[in-house]
Amino acid sequence: MFTLYYAAHTCSLATHIVLEEVGADYSTVRIDFGSAQQRSPEYLKVNPKARVPALVTDRGILTETPAMLAFVAQSFPASDLALMGDPFAFAQIQSFNSYLCSHLHIAHAHRMRGYRWVDADDAHSIAAMQRKVPEAVGGAFELVEREMLRGPWVMGERYTICDPYLFTLAQWLEADGVDPGRIPKVVDHRRRMSERPGVRKAIAQELA
Amino acid sequence: MFTLYYAAHTCSLATHIVLEEVGADYSTVRIDFGSAQQRSPEYLKVNPKARVPALVTDRGILTETPAMLAFVAQSFPASDLALMGDPFAFAQIQSFNSYLCSHLHIAHAHRMRGYRWVDADDAHSIAAMQRKVPEAVGGAFELVEREMLRGPWVMGERYTICDPYLFTLAQWLEADGVDPGRIPKVVDHRRRMSERPGVRKAIAQELA
Repeated sequence: MFTLYYAAHTCSLATHIVLEEVGADYSTVRIDFGSAQQRSPEYLKVNPKARVPALVTDRGILTETPAMLAFVAQSFPASDLALMGDPFAFAQIQSFNSYLCSHLHIAHAHRMRGYRWVDADDAHSIAAMQRKVPEAVGGAFELVEREMLRGPWVMGERYTICDPYLFTLAQWLEADGVDPGRIPKVVDHRRRMSERPGVRKAIAQELA
Repeated sequence: MFTLYYAAHTCSLATHIVLEEVGADYSTVRIDFGSAQQRSPEYLKVNPKARVPALVTDRGILTETPAMLAFVAQSFPASDLALMGDPFAFAQIQSFNSYLCSHLHIAHAHRMRGYRWVDADDAHSIAAMQRKVPEAVGGAFELVEREMLRGPWVMGERYTICDPYLFTLAQWLEADGVDPGRIPKVVDHRRRMSERPGVRKAIAQELA
């Protein structure tokens, strides 16, 4: 039994999709960023980082998407979504997911969370970060397109935990000012992902 | 047999230490950032991201520190440095390492790599990022101190791949303007790490 703390339009969707697709017994709790619920005393007991996602498990609470994705996959070994029996394949999956969290997602975060890295009242620097987002996020997606996405899935023929994570971050590329025409494989991957029943169900649940 | 591409004073030290401590058969190749060797055509064939570290293995090349650390640990199962037999313990290790790469290291990177997120000739914004580094890096280290570092090692009694990674990033805290007095457990961990023979050997090799 899992409980996923999530917010709509955030990277928590990746774990939500995997929970749905492995057939996990799970429930969800929506965190309202509009009222800063992620910084409430109650939520800080769940996740002192004041972020989503967080995953309550029978053993304790986990945070950080790459760790959560691999844990859910490992909890459902029949799904084999992390190819953990092959250490090199698993390492490639981990490398891809680490790139998404520490490069691509970070580049995106400079559009709306610039206050993490400059003073919040420094309008010049906040705007400067926002102007750079199309180039920084676009460059990261182009590297994914050119060097990482093998097709039809990220790791090739095998669908893995990389796919829901890439799909989740690819939700934001137009809002980030990235030209979809420069990354046709990423956009095609996103379209095929959006047709999966588990993906539709997770999105519908988050937006209900 | 492994080959580690590294640069001194970067996060490649974490993987270097683990290679040394598990007794791996490995060699190292120094990449000279001063001459922008990481962007040379030769190195881009090794790592198209133009970054260090990169790890050449018998199966192919790996990048991203969290993935490399887990792979080296998994390649030497007797070391049990990633506690992979216990999925929840392994997930906690992954969560910690993901936090270091996507939060703490990123906060640090705004001191010297601000051009990734604003135009390089925007001196105001570059300086604004630099001024924020003590607070952003310090806040991340304080969260590690308060919520994550169990003692004596990151995961408690068991030494794991989290320890060399934390040690590596803790090398930079004074230069980042963080007051060591606010994170005594992190500083004590760094001191104990620095006394380990494998750590001394890896550092000596990088600075030779």
